[in-house]
Amino acid sequence: MTVKPVRVTIWNEYRHERQDPAVRAHYPAGIHAVLAAALEAAGCTVRVATLDEPEHGLDAATLAATDVLVWWGHLAHEAVADTVVDRVQQRVLDGMGLVVLHSAHESKIFRRLMGTTCKVMWRERGERERVWVVQPAHPVAAGLPEYFELPQSEMYGEPTDIPAPDELVFISWFQGGEVFRSGGAYTRGRGRIFYFSPGHETFPIYHHPLVQRVIVNAVRWAAPNDFSGAPVAGIRQGGAHRPDPLEPLD
Amino acid sequence: MTVKPVRVTIWNEYRHERQDPAVRAHYPAGIHAVLAAALEAAGCTVRVATLDEPEHGLDAATLAATDVLVWWGHLAHEAVADTVVDRVQQRVLDGMGLVVLHSAHESKIFRRLMGTTCKVMWRERGERERVWVVQPAHPVAAGLPEYFELPQSEMYGEPTDIPAPDELVFISWFQGGEVFRSGGAYTRGRGRIFYFSPGHETFPIYHHPLVQRVIVNAVRWAAPNDFSGAPVAGIRQGGAHRPDPLEPLD
Amino acid sequence: MTVKPVRVTIWNEYRHERQDPAVRAHYPAGIHAVLAAALEAAGCTVRVATLDEPEHGLDAATLAATDVLVWWGHLAHEAVADTVVDRVQQRVLDGMGLVVLHSAHESKIFRRLMGTTCKVMWRERGERERVWVVQPAHPVAAGLPEYFELPQSEMYGEPTDIPAPDELVFISWFQGGEVFRSGGAYTRGRGRIFYFSPGHETFPIYHHPLVQRVIVNAVRWAAPNDFSGAPVAGIRQGGAHRPDPLEPLD
Amino acid sequence: MTVKPVRVTIWNEYRHERQDPAVRAHYPAGIHAVLAAALEAAGCTVRVATLDEPEHGLDAATLAATDVLVWWGHLAHEAVADTVVDRVQQRVLDGMGLVVLHSAHESKIFRRLMGTTCKVMWRERGERERVWVVQPAHPVAAGLPEYFELPQSEMYGEPTDIPAPDELVFISWFQGGEVFRSGGAYTRGRGRIFYFSPGHETFPIYHHPLVQRVIVNAVRWAAPNDFSGAPVAGIRQGGAHRPDPLEPLD
Repeated sequence: MTVKPVRVTIWNEYRHERQDPAVRAHYPAGIHAVLAAALEAAGCTVRVATLDEPEHGLDAATLAATDVLVWWGHLAHEAVADTVVDRVQQRVLDGMGLVVLHSAHESKIFRRLMGTTCKVMWRERGERERVWVVQPAHPVAAGLPEYFELPQSEMYGEPTDIPAPDELVFISWFQGGEVFRSGGAYTRGRGRIFYFSPGHETFPIYHHPLVQRVIVNAVRWAAPNDFSGAPVAGIRQGGAHRPDPLEPLD
Repeated sequence: MTVKPVRVTIWNEYRHERQDPAVRAHYPAGIHAVLAAALEAAGCTVRVATLDEPEHGLDAATLAATDVLVWWGHLAHEAVADTVVDRVQQRVLDGMGLVVLHSAHESKIFRRLMGTTCKVMWRERGERERVWVVQPAHPVAAGLPEYFELPQSEMYGEPTDIPAPDELVFISWFQGGEVFRSGGAYTRGRGRIFYFSPGHETFPIYHHPLVQRVIVNAVRWAAPNDFSGAPVAGIRQGGAHRPDPLEPLD
Repeated sequence: MTVKPVRVTIWNEYRHERQDPAVRAHYPAGIHAVLAAALEAAGCTVRVATLDEPEHGLDAATLAATDVLVWWGHLAHEAVADTVVDRVQQRVLDGMGLVVLHSAHESKIFRRLMGTTCKVMWRERGERERVWVVQPAHPVAAGLPEYFELPQSEMYGEPTDIPAPDELVFISWFQGGEVFRSGGAYTRGRGRIFYFSPGHETFPIYHHPLVQRVIVNAVRWAAPNDFSGAPVAGIRQGGAHRPDPLEPLD
Repeated sequence: MTVKPVRVTIWNEYRHERQDPAVRAHYPAGIHAVLAAALEAAGCTVRVATLDEPEHGLDAATLAATDVLVWWGHLAHEAVADTVVDRVQQRVLDGMGLVVLHSAHESKIFRRLMGTTCKVMWRERGERERVWVVQPAHPVAAGLPEYFELPQSEMYGEPTDIPAPDELVFISWFQGGEVFRSGGAYTRGRGRIFYFSPGHETFPIYHHPLVQRVIVNAVRWAAPNDFSGAPVAGIRQGGAHRPDPLEPLD
């Protein structure tokens, strides 16, 4: 069986890498470049969009041609225009997948889709993180060992305001004493969403082959199927009224 | 063991009953009056708030003194001020329960907390609805039989854009050929949310003793516990940074 | 990207078709033959095993070479040997997928994996069943419309003793007034399990193209990934003791 | 509102305490005595049953008068008679709550209800465990802080063969580098089940006031409601056939 390549758009805020030499040292061409290489190596078709492009690179045509959107942001969540957030939300509800990375838990689009502040506890001391697989049967765990280790990471800890995922795939252990639900799957409308917390601008985490494997897996998992009903877009566009019963009432 | 009474605020749009004789016939003192009587008979302390009051009756002091908010709206969802929606959302994330009734699936507050349009299929032909209990062990099913029947109801059907609940308690059968997930439980932040779809302004559904029982059960289930951590409010108010590790790093 | 064919074993009790002309009329070569044709057309590699073979056709070598086992039984659940049930359960926990069809809800293997009696309400009057998709984003809903209809079906209804699924994909509406959670996904150990209730020996339901599509989808969804940890088999075989900490204790 | 006291039966294997001075030092009257005192102080009515009594103290009359059964076992899981396991399982499916503690994850009754081996990784080095609350809104988290600490504990770690819970309430951090889903809620039939892993025979964990609080909370949460349908017992006893449709078929 042959499978069509997944069409991925990587959205990167892309400011850290241009402003901060410590970030540039790890990601000279931008975090998106490292992610793009990993996704292309896995057979995906990749385009990139960034904050400072017109419409943040997320015009309607780009979104319409995107199966899965990967989102990285940190410094400038509030600079993302609400009209673009509205448009991305609608595409997710209509079936586009969304993979939300690290500090993008506080992005407007993730908060919009989750209904909460999505705040987490955090500490930046470069401590050890160990990512445990707790649902090995899940597609996003494909090819992984029981756990993998990040020698230096930012701590994200419980309690968090991110809602409990439909399926919890990863739990992280931190050297400093915390745990975090570091990978989880959600559905909103017809769109599948995966949040994965490891990844940081001043550590080379996105170069780690197993972190890349998780992101590739998440993209494949989130790609839409070919369900032929038209529920969400349909019901939004006035189709929500079904005047005639399917069965006779008397 | 004695349990403190749950402090309930019933929010009612309260326009139908004043404008439409057909609605007034069933609910001469407002839908809220029927719900208030049922909740008071069950030992709750009840106050009422309506759209046309200042701040829609939902000032900060009222919300602070509310354990569970019950919400009914239909005609005028867009007339609810965003500042009030913001305030209610924060209280839910901090632990206030929320019981969302019938057409309030399209209320701003429910859409905000769910992250979707919350659209449903619908038809208003007064057909028969049968509400099946599918999770009898759930507290919201207490005191119910296997199913109960509403002789005339508005159809709400699948597909819907309301996210799948964490716990599905009721599924409705409709005479015209549809099904609907008519009762489900959610958690957002520290707040517990129950959506229950039966209930309509031109049918006497809120007079049905088992419908009242469900609403009483949902209010009791949604009332906050006395968890003493301060996660959500705390992390929103700047406490999300935990500078020192709980364990020594070396 | 090319995907390896899924290796499917269809287990059929295969007694109805040999004993009852009404069943033989629909399934002259056995229910398994219809399912095998559909799965082969979808690119799967299929073998068949039946009750009256030695070890019911489920020796260790067959199971070791099976990615997904499809199970149909009705008359003779108790004739399945416990040693074979033990063996199938272990393979599921080690990662083999399991697709359980219709009356196999009372099979020993499904009861074993669910922990309950798995009883359902039922009625055999040939009434209309309408299968609604409630989670269109799920892989098992791929290629389906909003609902499809079976003109004559056996009613399976709530309440049921089958546990709530991790993900509910289908809900059925029955002409006679019932609803049923007719398709749901479970994980046990590393194994993924899908239960799908439509299908009956005296109706031609397994000839329906959309029923076949669901079964193909379920097989693809249940196929194991290549997670490289060895948790379940490993911990069963004495590896559950991890004597040395990963981190120094002082 | 007044609430009836929950009728609890604590089942304790009760061999460690009689055989091993190190265990007796912490639990001179048996682990059950410490648990009983905590539950009685919380208003429960408590009886005790142990392995070496006739029928292990779990005759039909005792079970019929039990709302919630608490289970502790470790050395002698296989000594529990299958007929007693059958009887307990039926009572759970009919609505009795079950709270499963620590090493009882491998008890016959828990394995029966979960459908897996319920194996976990473990290490007994007396390391620090920190129990994090990840679902503060859950009734079992009532009265707890964000986390609490056990200075010396047995490590239970992922991966585990215990199925993912319907609601995950606690995650434990271990000093030696592991995490574990240490508290989770399940429903089987009409029965509610809570598994809580902290607790060990050679550490005084059941004397910890917050551990006791969790067990009291779990017992209250698991107590049956007064749902008046008769689904599970009913459908087991031949009521699963509903010959007449609720709606006319033509």
